[in-house]
Amino acid sequence: MSDLGNFFSHCTKIVDAELGKLIPSAKTEPARLYEAVRWSVFAGGKRFRPVLVLAVGKAFGADERKLLSTASAVEMIHTYSLIHDDLPAMDNDDLRRGRATCHVKFDEATAILAGDVLQTLAFQAIVNDALLSDKTKVRLIAELADSAARMVDGQQLDLDGEGKKIALADLEKIHQNKTGAMICVSARSGAIIAEAGENELNAVTNYASKLGLLFQITDDLLDVTQTTEVLGKTAGKDLRAEKATYPAFYGIEETRNLAEKVYREAVAALNNLEKPTAILREIADFILNRKA
Amino acid sequence: MSDLGNFFSHCTKIVDAELGKLIPSAKTEPARLYEAVRWSVFAGGKRFRPVLVLAVGKAFGADERKLLSTASAVEMIHTYSLIHDDLPAMDNDDLRRGRATCHVKFDEATAILAGDVLQTLAFQAIVNDALLSDKTKVRLIAELADSAARMVDGQQLDLDGEGKKIALADLEKIHQNKTGAMICVSARSGAIIAEAGENELNAVTNYASKLGLLFQITDDLLDVTQTTEVLGKTAGKDLRAEKATYPAFYGIEETRNLAEKVYREAVAALNNLEKPTAILREIADFILNRKA
Repeated sequence: MSDLGNFFSHCTKIVDAELGKLIPSAKTEPARLYEAVRWSVFAGGKRFRPVLVLAVGKAFGADERKLLSTASAVEMIHTYSLIHDDLPAMDNDDLRRGRATCHVKFDEATAILAGDVLQTLAFQAIVNDALLSDKTKVRLIAELADSAARMVDGQQLDLDGEGKKIALADLEKIHQNKTGAMICVSARSGAIIAEAGENELNAVTNYASKLGLLFQITDDLLDVTQTTEVLGKTAGKDLRAEKATYPAFYGIEETRNLAEKVYREAVAALNNLEKPTAILREIADFILNRKA
Repeated sequence: MSDLGNFFSHCTKIVDAELGKLIPSAKTEPARLYEAVRWSVFAGGKRFRPVLVLAVGKAFGADERKLLSTASAVEMIHTYSLIHDDLPAMDNDDLRRGRATCHVKFDEATAILAGDVLQTLAFQAIVNDALLSDKTKVRLIAELADSAARMVDGQQLDLDGEGKKIALADLEKIHQNKTGAMICVSARSGAIIAEAGENELNAVTNYASKLGLLFQITDDLLDVTQTTEVLGKTAGKDLRAEKATYPAFYGIEETRNLAEKVYREAVAALNNLEKPTAILREIADFILNRKA
């Protein structure tokens, strides 16, 4: 396995263990609620956002143990958004991470509540972490709340834009909010826990902004080029929902060129850092070349 | 107007002003999202939980300005829970606080997102309050997260129990979680901001626990004795949903006696406090005798 493969599997292992501790067991009353939460959280997600927290934090010298609650928190926020996004009133999707979505496996009311409590548990994870100072907790929660709100803004903008012709600038605004903000805060949180300086934090922000954009562009490409089986979620649904996407604007070939350009910009942002950033570059490689 | 009436209207005024600052304006993009949030938040709610934050905080000598973000946060958590509770997949209600529920006025997807972002804004309100120390913010957020999670637990327990014969102990567990936890944390937060000691905090917790129970008992009574018009929300719906309620267990007269008993216990808890608690007693009077 490559260095990145090893790093991903190490991160998944320790983050899953931490999530297992932070989320009440499936036997906790009300059992149906925490079964539903665990169904969606432990569905074999890529843990991309936690990996970013850990990769950036470790590049800046943070103790791994101090990164775990925040890595888990960003995954909990992400998963709550997926559960709600999949609801019949939203994207109405029955497949996610290769298995039934939360409301299909359980029911809509339980899925709404599972998403709700996951958001709460995310903030709780950070605030209860005995390894972080109060000052760090406050900064992390402030940044996480800001990004979680922007994520919801992005979902609303996305819904508002369905079936309409929207401009490229609007598409970018949707993505910067809907996916970019949480990817950005994941990287920034790692640097904050490592007590990085403002210049370093700016470089991390630039890197993560480009990485978030790259992630979205490749997501759009995969939706039109891959099968549902490979993706573990319904393929081709952007097109059916008449969503604005990069391939819809540029065509597939030009979108691939755009991905290459954004990849180079992400990597260039790392050049401003005097830190061991090989793994961050490999993450960008991985996003550029991902097949699912 | 009575002292309590003046206090309530003062609280409503300053909390509404604070909420107006904390929640993005209805012109903020995505406008539909923040219109929906404001529709539900500024619907003329009683602001019972913020009043408790302010009443307890002031009784313990806190500066009123330091109480406002937390008073707003508990109202935002409460309102998010109402928006989601009213959804078709949950209680499917179209009337709340005398007007159309969020999903009826807007749409289900927007209502889901409005509730989601309100929860985020609640934590954001506290963490961004420049008047509170980091230590206090961390304690408040930890307590609020714990109570917000218990509130969701209670909603799930409530849903799980619909249409079933449940024991009185189960009914009490539902209420302690669903409404009791947020009422309790409202009172405790006021005392925490005022830097009350542990003994004082225990007395406040006892008072608020009884007050929460009293609130629920009178809520159940009003559901069977008042009209939809007076309540501003659909009357008689507990019965139709075959929900376990105090009147269903005890009958109306015995439930009234129980309310009196719980009221006396709430007031007795105040006797352990060497603080000016007249307003806290009046709040208990008000809950006991409320007509809506």
